[in-house]
Amino acid sequence: MTSQPVPPRETSGGHPTSSAAGTRLDPWLTSYAERTHGMRSSEIRALFAVANRPEVVSLAGGMPFLEGLPLDVLGDIAQRVVATRGLQALQYGSGQGDETLREQILDLMRLEGIEAHPDDVVVTTGSQQALDLVTRIFIDPGDVVVAEAPSYVGALGVFRAYQADVAHVPIDADGLVPEALESTLASLAAAGRTVKLLYTVPNFHNPAGVSMSEERRPRVLEIARRYGVLVVEDNPYGLLGFDSEPRDAIRSLDEDGVVYLGSFSKTFAPGYRVGWVVAPHAVREKLVLASESAILCPSNASQIAISTYLSTCDWRGQIKSYREQYRERRDAMISALAEHLPEASWNVPAGGFYTWVRLPDGLDAKDMLPRAVTARVAYVPGTAFYFDGSGSEHLRLSFCYPTPERIREGVRRLAGVVAGEKELVELFGTSAGAASDVVHAPGPDVA
Amino acid sequence: MTSQPVPPRETSGGHPTSSAAGTRLDPWLTSYAERTHGMRSSEIRALFAVANRPEVVSLAGGMPFLEGLPLDVLGDIAQRVVATRGLQALQYGSGQGDETLREQILDLMRLEGIEAHPDDVVVTTGSQQALDLVTRIFIDPGDVVVAEAPSYVGALGVFRAYQADVAHVPIDADGLVPEALESTLASLAAAGRTVKLLYTVPNFHNPAGVSMSEERRPRVLEIARRYGVLVVEDNPYGLLGFDSEPRDAIRSLDEDGVVYLGSFSKTFAPGYRVGWVVAPHAVREKLVLASESAILCPSNASQIAISTYLSTCDWRGQIKSYREQYRERRDAMISALAEHLPEASWNVPAGGFYTWVRLPDGLDAKDMLPRAVTARVAYVPGTAFYFDGSGSEHLRLSFCYPTPERIREGVRRLAGVVAGEKELVELFGTSAGAASDVVHAPGPDVA
Repeated sequence: MTSQPVPPRETSGGHPTSSAAGTRLDPWLTSYAERTHGMRSSEIRALFAVANRPEVVSLAGGMPFLEGLPLDVLGDIAQRVVATRGLQALQYGSGQGDETLREQILDLMRLEGIEAHPDDVVVTTGSQQALDLVTRIFIDPGDVVVAEAPSYVGALGVFRAYQADVAHVPIDADGLVPEALESTLASLAAAGRTVKLLYTVPNFHNPAGVSMSEERRPRVLEIARRYGVLVVEDNPYGLLGFDSEPRDAIRSLDEDGVVYLGSFSKTFAPGYRVGWVVAPHAVREKLVLASESAILCPSNASQIAISTYLSTCDWRGQIKSYREQYRERRDAMISALAEHLPEASWNVPAGGFYTWVRLPDGLDAKDMLPRAVTARVAYVPGTAFYFDGSGSEHLRLSFCYPTPERIREGVRRLAGVVAGEKELVELFGTSAGAASDVVHAPGPDVA
Repeated sequence: MTSQPVPPRETSGGHPTSSAAGTRLDPWLTSYAERTHGMRSSEIRALFAVANRPEVVSLAGGMPFLEGLPLDVLGDIAQRVVATRGLQALQYGSGQGDETLREQILDLMRLEGIEAHPDDVVVTTGSQQALDLVTRIFIDPGDVVVAEAPSYVGALGVFRAYQADVAHVPIDADGLVPEALESTLASLAAAGRTVKLLYTVPNFHNPAGVSMSEERRPRVLEIARRYGVLVVEDNPYGLLGFDSEPRDAIRSLDEDGVVYLGSFSKTFAPGYRVGWVVAPHAVREKLVLASESAILCPSNASQIAISTYLSTCDWRGQIKSYREQYRERRDAMISALAEHLPEASWNVPAGGFYTWVRLPDGLDAKDMLPRAVTARVAYVPGTAFYFDGSGSEHLRLSFCYPTPERIREGVRRLAGVVAGEKELVELFGTSAGAASDVVHAPGPDVA
């Protein structure tokens, strides 16, 4: 089809700017919503396109390693779901999600001490959608979300998309520091700010790798309650501890003060995009309305496939196998760091996917990234995990996806890059950094 | 697990209202965002729970009739997708969507005269998510969306969720009336309002059943361009015409002035939740960022299943079979209306799922609904399709899901209810309506 003639867009009267013939100016530049101005493609996105090449060892991504999944068995499940339950699996479903799956989710959550009712659960398109919906129903522009320093980049992106401010609270080896939370909330209250949510990843934190101690959990909850702040407990990694049983969730301590987010992406597989949220009754009702507005309903095909997997396969055994697999990779990364990067510091995570590394003084993880990619190793600079783009002395290394051999090779390459940077710093007082900017909303490769 | 003791929530200082022991008051009542106040469960939702009982003939829902799908073949596809491509299908994918599927979507759209590049397409969780994302990036509170009168209830819910105002523009048998669009936009401009979007369902309109004539399409586009308004062309039904080939899409006339929404829900199956949006380049970039923030990425499992279906099955034959199936149902409904409800008026849709019925004078479709459900027939009152809750003299009947026999029986029951209402009106001057309210965001059962 060729275009039928239409008059040129006018430059006056209408909102869009003129679309000069032949240029790629955005004719809708002046039409975007206020919230859209914060959405920018990060320049590290282009780097990650390179980082996904096979010759690059990516210690950047949060993709689970799926090769241990019984694909034949899962294929048979997928076949049965469609061939025998297709009229349901291929049809629209409930906005809240499949009831059988919601009951099975309760079984999973019982491993973390959570007692809930199926009606408290809303199934979402990955727990990222849960995060979006919770933010949507609570955050007005200018409201404050309190979050760990550092915090999950995908959550910071959601908070930014709803024009929240984020106040970071320090963490240590036992997770969020209650005294720091208290003083931050007190300062914000004194400044007249409206704090709506405390966002926390209490287990095997992304990116910091630490977990909130059991002793701190009721204290954090009590402080949040006292300041009228809803706790958003984001727990994708809680069942992936390497050496110990899962800790009781914060939600197990309080039904009304916590919204809990769960996911099958790390304990099973992300490709079905199934997560969930557990919320107090009235909040849950609003989440369902918000989800219906956003997507009508989650995929029945995905939900029934996961439900059938849970009822017919040894999902506990699969989680155990994941734990062993990731422990071996964690060990490979930690020993490689000790061998090749003794001048940096890092923590030894007891579960999850990530190690948080502090570079030697004077080095900037963001400036260094282009050179690292040139040296065929990728990571996520710490700046991605701070709302204000600080954290450049840190980087996140993930050990979830590459093999132990590749992890060791990646750390070896990284050590070479760090050595080169140190030389530059010693010679010139600074490394010749690439022009850099705040990292915004990287895609799922850094989830 | 029993709860560990935590102090009671304070009533002063914090935002939440007190959660009095034992009551079901919402402790977060004062914490919700401004946009959340418009989200209310509609009272017709409860009625629809009843309407879903098998003894009720539901002429309310927008569920496609899937029994003609080759479930065995689709089951084998699902098996192959997971067993042979599971490492991709079960993994995170691209935020923009699978590239092969985006190329296949171009083939579909060529049937409507659209020439585009795979990079112009973003795959979404149903086209509802596309609607949410477009609204998210363009609408500030108080902005105006212009839409047909009546308009799709699920779109009105999205606009409300982003605190837009909706200005309705009349339609006739040839769709949106250009002169009315022009005068509406002129009035809004004179009033200093900011109009961002023109939302239109040009083919086999939901709920009105009409299509925009080919002659009007460039005129509507020209008016929108002149006022700097982006056209959102929502086209789930365009390939489901009963008697003629698809019309060229508005998008086929203009690459820069139109955002086009498509869906596999009606031409294949809704359970995978796969739709898409085609947008001008800069808008497309923002849609991808917004989608990554909302869900990280669409389901690879769903996308690859649909992509395999498109490449290995006769999808054109399936669409032809749907067209025949829905034509037979449309015929059953129209002949039953002529037989049983001659005192009402309706249109004869040339495609899609819906007929728009005007009741005899003095009757109120919303007030009448509880009695209709008691008489074991359900529909959606016209009030759902107007932003201000007007339209009570209309109702939407859908002929997509029940068999022709059930459709005839449903219309017969509806005629009995209408006769009873007319008697009440003649006796008392009004029907004794149930206390009613504006219908908000019904779930997918009325999609």
